[in-house]
Amino acid sequence: MTNPFFKNHGPINIVEIIRLLNINFDKKIENQNVDDVKDLYSASDKDITFFHSKKYKHLANKTKASYCITTNSLRDELPINCIALIVENVLISTSIITAKFYPDSVEDNFDQTVIDINQSDFKNKVKFGKNILIGKNVSIGSNCLIGHNTIIEKNVYIGDNCSIGSNTIIRNSIIGNNVKILDKCIVGKHGFGFFPDPNKNLRYPHVGIVKIEDNCEIGCGSTIDRGSMSNTVIGKNTFLDNQIHIAHNVKIGENTIIAGQVGIAGSSTLGKNVKIGGQAGISGHLKIGDNVEIAGGSGVIKDIPDNSKVMGYPAKNIRQFLKENK
Amino acid sequence: MTNPFFKNHGPINIVEIIRLLNINFDKKIENQNVDDVKDLYSASDKDITFFHSKKYKHLANKTKASYCITTNSLRDELPINCIALIVENVLISTSIITAKFYPDSVEDNFDQTVIDINQSDFKNKVKFGKNILIGKNVSIGSNCLIGHNTIIEKNVYIGDNCSIGSNTIIRNSIIGNNVKILDKCIVGKHGFGFFPDPNKNLRYPHVGIVKIEDNCEIGCGSTIDRGSMSNTVIGKNTFLDNQIHIAHNVKIGENTIIAGQVGIAGSSTLGKNVKIGGQAGISGHLKIGDNVEIAGGSGVIKDIPDNSKVMGYPAKNIRQFLKENK
Amino acid sequence: MTNPFFKNHGPINIVEIIRLLNINFDKKIENQNVDDVKDLYSASDKDITFFHSKKYKHLANKTKASYCITTNSLRDELPINCIALIVENVLISTSIITAKFYPDSVEDNFDQTVIDINQSDFKNKVKFGKNILIGKNVSIGSNCLIGHNTIIEKNVYIGDNCSIGSNTIIRNSIIGNNVKILDKCIVGKHGFGFFPDPNKNLRYPHVGIVKIEDNCEIGCGSTIDRGSMSNTVIGKNTFLDNQIHIAHNVKIGENTIIAGQVGIAGSSTLGKNVKIGGQAGISGHLKIGDNVEIAGGSGVIKDIPDNSKVMGYPAKNIRQFLKENK
Repeated sequence: MTNPFFKNHGPINIVEIIRLLNINFDKKIENQNVDDVKDLYSASDKDITFFHSKKYKHLANKTKASYCITTNSLRDELPINCIALIVENVLISTSIITAKFYPDSVEDNFDQTVIDINQSDFKNKVKFGKNILIGKNVSIGSNCLIGHNTIIEKNVYIGDNCSIGSNTIIRNSIIGNNVKILDKCIVGKHGFGFFPDPNKNLRYPHVGIVKIEDNCEIGCGSTIDRGSMSNTVIGKNTFLDNQIHIAHNVKIGENTIIAGQVGIAGSSTLGKNVKIGGQAGISGHLKIGDNVEIAGGSGVIKDIPDNSKVMGYPAKNIRQFLKENK
Repeated sequence: MTNPFFKNHGPINIVEIIRLLNINFDKKIENQNVDDVKDLYSASDKDITFFHSKKYKHLANKTKASYCITTNSLRDELPINCIALIVENVLISTSIITAKFYPDSVEDNFDQTVIDINQSDFKNKVKFGKNILIGKNVSIGSNCLIGHNTIIEKNVYIGDNCSIGSNTIIRNSIIGNNVKILDKCIVGKHGFGFFPDPNKNLRYPHVGIVKIEDNCEIGCGSTIDRGSMSNTVIGKNTFLDNQIHIAHNVKIGENTIIAGQVGIAGSSTLGKNVKIGGQAGISGHLKIGDNVEIAGGSGVIKDIPDNSKVMGYPAKNIRQFLKENK
Repeated sequence: MTNPFFKNHGPINIVEIIRLLNINFDKKIENQNVDDVKDLYSASDKDITFFHSKKYKHLANKTKASYCITTNSLRDELPINCIALIVENVLISTSIITAKFYPDSVEDNFDQTVIDINQSDFKNKVKFGKNILIGKNVSIGSNCLIGHNTIIEKNVYIGDNCSIGSNTIIRNSIIGNNVKILDKCIVGKHGFGFFPDPNKNLRYPHVGIVKIEDNCEIGCGSTIDRGSMSNTVIGKNTFLDNQIHIAHNVKIGENTIIAGQVGIAGSSTLGKNVKIGGQAGISGHLKIGDNVEIAGGSGVIKDIPDNSKVMGYPAKNIRQFLKENK
């Protein structure tokens, strides 16, 4: 997990973690501090990790974590140095622990730290409009413009030569050089991630950020959610048209062009030089290759290999689609 | 018609109503006041009602209204105590009369009653950002947050523990407890309802409101229109993602999950525990059952029974769709 | 090219133009001023024009321009009074020259000319909300309303009896009488037009404007981009619902009705009395006839003749579509 912006409220004692997970733990447990919650691969012996699917068996076998939230059926995959904490639902339990380490990553209420830009250090550095608010932990490069009524909430780094439009809201984002974010965008808010519960759905933490690389342009009225466990990334020189929605954890390669009203669901990855026509949709957790062209209005529900041109719903080879739909 | 927020400018004398309808009325008419315009079922003998389709014959037979706007071919279904006012287009005529009783329900120009929250009673009760405007007849419960540049226009009741984002506009709405409405939403404006006319389309009144029940979440950039003759309702613990459009009179059941960029056209009703994937669209006046799952990108153009899973355009059984579209 | 709002920074000397195009020009060239860049048909002998496709041969044959940006294979179509400037990519070269004549038409950074409406001449003429900004070269007719936080940026003419909502941004637009533009719209920003380049995409100028004719209504959260080489036009008494995107150069006829979340790609033309259901999409450069009905969710990828009803993706005759998709 990369969390340049979310303060780790750890270490947390393992006894407290076990209490939060509401599990019976028969073995005698040492009164040990846990530094962080990390994935199977990144965790050190000071950390707790989680393991919820056989798909990650090869990582589980080698994890260095001292503790792992998992299920009874998966526990045997863990090395002996890693103590299994058996729960019913690994993701809900991990969410509870992550929220304890990173309490600021769960909710996105309005940023109460903001001040008027005229009272900030940016007053003499940035060219700005009326009624602009700046949060804590914001940096802005040279030669930048910020439009009217825009709110740069906490945890935003902006490079040089950027132009932010009016009525836009940004938080928890790293923005490169020569980037344009047009009017009325919302960048860096948490994604649509929660565990359904008939009484009150349980939001899970979003400790990822949004990264927008150099030379990008984001069209009016677009929303780009930050990642939950990884980052949302818009690659170099990628251009987005108006009213686009990019969900959490999506990664878009460089030199990609996306037309208006496109939506990309959570955790999908796009290669470079991709072209997407207006109103197309891409389901979650897919891999779209390099140089792929997706016709406007298409609905992509499976991976698309490099250099393909697809169309339709479900999106298929464009020549086949047009032949079938004369 | 439920109109907690729209002031009834009645009673209106029946002679004035006949004049407004521009009809020839041969019978001698008593100089009587009419209190309200209501549907066939709710109207009392102080009210005027309307009857435009045989579908409602069973209600017309028993209406208690003293007057009814209807057509020549339908008049014989009315009881003898109800005087028929014969017009060419029942809905247009009803719209004209409704607009007379509820003139504030037709247009949604900007709310001129608003004041800065710092000059309101909420100053010490609500945690709020910069540049917030509050209209007349607003109530806000305890422990609420209101983000920057947000406008709570007239006629809004907000429960306890609610978080309203920044740049959001709300009017004519009742919002329960523990509700989150994220940034840049527009809630409670009139719907897309009018009678086409080659010179100037005629807007019809929207006397309904928006009700958002407890524990709901409304994503960034969403629009929820208020109802015309009934309310628009978002059921308890229902979560909406970003850039969703909910049209007038739509009713959504509890525990429903709707992904980004979905659109639901006017007067459709959704059951509880419904799941809708991104960019799906639902036509108007449909009934979607409980526990229905609608795949992302689908276009629903007919009723969907309980417990169905559908996909495609037009949406059909998901297994059939996937089989036909390998 | 119609450019009531973009200041022509010409004349520009032809020697400078040749230098900007970075071309070798063997012939001796006179030190002549060029007044403007115009299309083949409109150009006078004081202007430069461009010719990039055989499609326009009949216009090229008769152009009065003294200079024409074109390719080697097309040059012979020009009359002898017109000097060919041979380039590799006509559109990129024309874009560079257009940007030189109209430098303000390329980027839409926030308008630094705006002042608070209370400091403007409109203070006593318009009924307005809080926090409203007005740019240079704005005119507003009688009996108009402007909602809170709205920005009327430079180069906007608004007729009589118009109602502009809150949080809306308008620039480079001519708006007729009795027009309503609801909350949170963005009207008149440049379109999604650029020449892809692996290092940094090259934006081309947008010297067109947005024209919204009398009696129109534009729904909440809609975006209407101005034209590049021609105007974007919304015809008389046309109503748009919420969250609609109208791209650059689109022309929509009168009495047209467009439901929520529809998107119309660049340079398409719609007739009058067109009806479009929610979420439908229309590809670029198409011609949709008069009285056409397009079902919600449809994807239109070819021209549609007058009086047709279409549905599906690709959109086809509605009866055929419904028969094929029982």
